[in-house]
Amino acid sequence: MAPRIGLFGFGKAGRAVATILLNSKETRLEWVVRRSHRMEHRSVPEYLGIDSDEPGTIISVEAEEYRQLFQRRPVDIVVDFSSEEGLGEYLPMVREGGIPVVSAISHYSAEAIGQLVDLSRSVPLLWSPNITLGVNFLLRASRILRKIAPWADVEVVEEHFREKREVSGTAKRLAEAVDYPVEQIKSIRAGGIIGKHEVLFGFPFQTVRLIHESISREAFGNGALFAVKHLLGKPAGLYSMEDLLEPWFATSESVG
Amino acid sequence: MAPRIGLFGFGKAGRAVATILLNSKETRLEWVVRRSHRMEHRSVPEYLGIDSDEPGTIISVEAEEYRQLFQRRPVDIVVDFSSEEGLGEYLPMVREGGIPVVSAISHYSAEAIGQLVDLSRSVPLLWSPNITLGVNFLLRASRILRKIAPWADVEVVEEHFREKREVSGTAKRLAEAVDYPVEQIKSIRAGGIIGKHEVLFGFPFQTVRLIHESISREAFGNGALFAVKHLLGKPAGLYSMEDLLEPWFATSESVG
Amino acid sequence: MAPRIGLFGFGKAGRAVATILLNSKETRLEWVVRRSHRMEHRSVPEYLGIDSDEPGTIISVEAEEYRQLFQRRPVDIVVDFSSEEGLGEYLPMVREGGIPVVSAISHYSAEAIGQLVDLSRSVPLLWSPNITLGVNFLLRASRILRKIAPWADVEVVEEHFREKREVSGTAKRLAEAVDYPVEQIKSIRAGGIIGKHEVLFGFPFQTVRLIHESISREAFGNGALFAVKHLLGKPAGLYSMEDLLEPWFATSESVG
Amino acid sequence: MAPRIGLFGFGKAGRAVATILLNSKETRLEWVVRRSHRMEHRSVPEYLGIDSDEPGTIISVEAEEYRQLFQRRPVDIVVDFSSEEGLGEYLPMVREGGIPVVSAISHYSAEAIGQLVDLSRSVPLLWSPNITLGVNFLLRASRILRKIAPWADVEVVEEHFREKREVSGTAKRLAEAVDYPVEQIKSIRAGGIIGKHEVLFGFPFQTVRLIHESISREAFGNGALFAVKHLLGKPAGLYSMEDLLEPWFATSESVG
Repeated sequence: MAPRIGLFGFGKAGRAVATILLNSKETRLEWVVRRSHRMEHRSVPEYLGIDSDEPGTIISVEAEEYRQLFQRRPVDIVVDFSSEEGLGEYLPMVREGGIPVVSAISHYSAEAIGQLVDLSRSVPLLWSPNITLGVNFLLRASRILRKIAPWADVEVVEEHFREKREVSGTAKRLAEAVDYPVEQIKSIRAGGIIGKHEVLFGFPFQTVRLIHESISREAFGNGALFAVKHLLGKPAGLYSMEDLLEPWFATSESVG
Repeated sequence: MAPRIGLFGFGKAGRAVATILLNSKETRLEWVVRRSHRMEHRSVPEYLGIDSDEPGTIISVEAEEYRQLFQRRPVDIVVDFSSEEGLGEYLPMVREGGIPVVSAISHYSAEAIGQLVDLSRSVPLLWSPNITLGVNFLLRASRILRKIAPWADVEVVEEHFREKREVSGTAKRLAEAVDYPVEQIKSIRAGGIIGKHEVLFGFPFQTVRLIHESISREAFGNGALFAVKHLLGKPAGLYSMEDLLEPWFATSESVG
Repeated sequence: MAPRIGLFGFGKAGRAVATILLNSKETRLEWVVRRSHRMEHRSVPEYLGIDSDEPGTIISVEAEEYRQLFQRRPVDIVVDFSSEEGLGEYLPMVREGGIPVVSAISHYSAEAIGQLVDLSRSVPLLWSPNITLGVNFLLRASRILRKIAPWADVEVVEEHFREKREVSGTAKRLAEAVDYPVEQIKSIRAGGIIGKHEVLFGFPFQTVRLIHESISREAFGNGALFAVKHLLGKPAGLYSMEDLLEPWFATSESVG
Repeated sequence: MAPRIGLFGFGKAGRAVATILLNSKETRLEWVVRRSHRMEHRSVPEYLGIDSDEPGTIISVEAEEYRQLFQRRPVDIVVDFSSEEGLGEYLPMVREGGIPVVSAISHYSAEAIGQLVDLSRSVPLLWSPNITLGVNFLLRASRILRKIAPWADVEVVEEHFREKREVSGTAKRLAEAVDYPVEQIKSIRAGGIIGKHEVLFGFPFQTVRLIHESISREAFGNGALFAVKHLLGKPAGLYSMEDLLEPWFATSESVG
């Protein structure tokens, strides 16, 4: 039977994830927790206009009622696209139930990170601030080429919309993966560019460019689905998206 | 001690390879066999203006004298950038001596391929028509992403100089690696473009592009050096460049 | 005083245009005609959450009431992002009032095109199926480079989302501008790519690429604003976006 | 009759220029002045292996003999790919003969620039440190788009081989053309990249990229041929390549 998913968060990213999950036959979206009370008890398939017989009930519960939710509508995995506070709400239930967790929250406080690490002793827990397949593939492939050719020159370039002031977090992770000084990242800011990242390897007579382009900020759906499928069945521990991708790199045979 | 190399071929590619080998402290270029009798017994470092104390003697021998050459000036590995006929000249000596061979010859006759396969039972033998690190990295990385995301769309695009009529062989290999119909490869022909290959993966909200650009047709040096280092010590067998790259993909640790 | 604009159409494109117009101090959005009766008489600034004191009243009128609208709330120019039928609704009023028209409708019937041509004898009328500045700049710049270097090789490449079956109309116009056979356009289809067009010029030792990337299908706002500003004051006639861009190409001085 | 050309300089760039000139039926390469006495009086077609009946005699003269050369083998235009000192050698003869000059010398001393300006009162004189069609087209097209859309964001990015320490001179000129601070140019240095320049225009919902890629450092031939053809017949004055390109931008009709 398809694993039952409980989703926290129903903002832009949450909706994109719900869309992909509902369109996939490999999972069953059991419910979605959102903060606002609007649309309470409606169903996500109906709201998003997707033809699906998965329940996807929209739930707006207070903290004290989460325990009830997990009892009445049990799930096999929790996917969290809400906010830092989400963790505290479901932590006791997933620990007790041994329920795996996929968290795509960008920033956790030091305290919350402590809780995550602690929780990962009891359940398989994936935390990835950028849960897209593309970026995580780029991270791993770049790391590999860096090791194959440590003498090649490398540059990291990122492009974003004009208002984005700081260097992109993804670019920083790419830079770290290839031992490139974060302060040398070339940041291009122009117009409404959603996001482009390039790791360039310069050889004497050839160049390799690994490029990731974001089309919309909703690129998380397929990554979340991938994480759900491959985290289930893993032993307890703290995982990154790169960890889940590792088997595909390790062999030329299909792991799928 | 640095492994001693015997190089066959001193055309454009052969010279580029000799340059990289002489600049590397990890190998010792013992001699170079060329067809023409010009510059007989001069040294390659002197000819190319490279400051090196490796001998790199230029040798122009007739077929019958090759046996003498291998006896008087023994080498630990043979690198072949000559032509299809080269194989026949050194085959008996490398088989008897158990000397590994790196061959970058583009096309072998069916008969010669039979000899290669036969030889590979006695010595480690790498044959790669495109021995660049970049293209072989692209091949393997593309193959992996295809398996991670078989539902993603893929396109293969190549650009070359106007006179190149046929679809590039490298593009065909890339297409095969990602199960893309060779006849759908997009071939762009314009001006003097040396060579550009792109494998594009299209996701619903993101795009990944793996791009290789050739700067000159002499991109083989570093690839040959890599092949030499990593073929030495391998058991007898027929290897591709991708095979040699595999350990780097299999682990996130340095294999060095 | 800023010219008063009457906008027909309030779909995705219409809203993007309204946003740019409201954020510009160079125009005054007087009203917007939409088909649906929802939000009748609300204001666009309020609806879109834009801080502006321009009226931008949302109007849902039946055909017979358009005459009243033009009388009570006169405008200096009409911008049409509605549909083919829009033309018939306002045609008598703009002809009588000598009011310039900017139409961004993709396809008109042969009959409607006849009406357009006829109307253009009375008023300045711009019709552009792709009213973006970027694409029209590319068109003109490509045409020029083609004439400067007719012996250079040229290729036209376009990328779009997988579901787009036919060759893009913009690519066809680019191809015509550089005398490139439409049937040789390289069409790449992958994932969710919004739209990318490239005109590549290949010289023996250099390459020039003119590239346009669409970020969202709402790129029409700045183009429409540009068209409004530069169509006002022109003599009656049928104009293209390229026509309006011509003065900037003709001189190195600012025309603005 | 095809205009007769006297070429100064027979280094890499000079040879590339001679090749293009000899392959063109629109000009006649009369002679080439080189510093070295090697190959004196041989012909360039023979030396470069080009099938041409143009003389292209290789001349190695001392300064005092230049007067004789211009008398015995008169030319209609001088093309200078030699070095700063070249100017002094032919200056008296071109002034007296009213012979147009195309100079592609990168750097002149202040004194030499004074001489150039003075000479340009007597003859049409084109001076362009980067005489390629591609770069000069990019300069002018960028300048125009900047004026069409002064509110668009702009970025200038250049890529070169690792050893190139300073920001590229071409990138600086592009930056000046679009009012972009030279110190914000993004300079990428990796491997053996010959040279890539990009002017990126960022709009809210679209991006325009004007890209020039150098394939080899010999891209000057077609630019020089273009300069020769279009400088002949011009009144005395100091011209840039952009000046010669202007007529193509000014009209949509062919000027050629």
